[in-house]
Amino acid sequence: MRIYPTVLATLLAIGTLTDVAADPVPYPAGYREWVHVESMLIEPGHPLFDSFGGLHHLCANEQAVTGYRSGRFSDGSVIVFDLLTPVSADHAVTEGVRKVLGVMHKDWKRYAATGGWGFDGFVGDSHTERAVGDKAATACFSCHETLKDSGYVFSELLP
Amino acid sequence: MRIYPTVLATLLAIGTLTDVAADPVPYPAGYREWVHVESMLIEPGHPLFDSFGGLHHLCANEQAVTGYRSGRFSDGSVIVFDLLTPVSADHAVTEGVRKVLGVMHKDWKRYAATGGWGFDGFVGDSHTERAVGDKAATACFSCHETLKDSGYVFSELLP
Repeated sequence: MRIYPTVLATLLAIGTLTDVAADPVPYPAGYREWVHVESMLIEPGHPLFDSFGGLHHLCANEQAVTGYRSGRFSDGSVIVFDLLTPVSADHAVTEGVRKVLGVMHKDWKRYAATGGWGFDGFVGDSHTERAVGDKAATACFSCHETLKDSGYVFSELLP
Repeated sequence: MRIYPTVLATLLAIGTLTDVAADPVPYPAGYREWVHVESMLIEPGHPLFDSFGGLHHLCANEQAVTGYRSGRFSDGSVIVFDLLTPVSADHAVTEGVRKVLGVMHKDWKRYAATGGWGFDGFVGDSHTERAVGDKAATACFSCHETLKDSGYVFSELLP
């Protein structure tokens, strides 16, 4: 049973939390060489289309891969949500330019207010232009907090 | 300019070569931890739908990643084509069971007749049930041989 698509398909940012300034999440240097976790195409009509429409890939660093397998994500775990513009033509969908690179960065001390995860997004291919900033609690964790038993992580490692 | 989608969308197995028995391509152990190259969704109506319909991910071992960057794939380079059943629901496409795991394995001596690449496919999650076997020349290389200038490789590494 994979909870990721089901939950992602029904959740919207609810905004029950209060945003607080937190240490900025570092850009995930080298993530293109991390492990591919799973992928999903979000199409027009999906409730998250405005924010997340397109083809996205979850990728994880070594510590996060251990976390997917053990169910416990240790400090230093980083998961990225690599969202690419879908290009539909000739009965196929290919990958266009990068829309945003979402990041979850585990550090219990720095991100205690949001389940131990820091959240941010980097616009396009920028390493500095942030899409979330200090809005992580309302823009990200308000959805992720529903998944406490999964370490606040929606995705699951493909076999 | 990315040639992969364009060429893949128009090619069909032409069968101009003659199949010969070759050393079996090894199962690519550990490929789920290799580098994700790029992905594509092939939908009904696409000329390759019968063989390759679904969401596929290209992944590459370290030598093959060097090959994508340098334009020259050295012996030991391995690229996989991981084809998953698409599951369409609620305006999203997620990943179902694995259909086939295609493999390109570079070894100039062993696979001289097919551009130095050995080709095979492993059915579903099997490590032993082969989808191509000794039909690599007609089932695989007849398309790939059109891309000699790209080392017989369709895909390109996403930025």
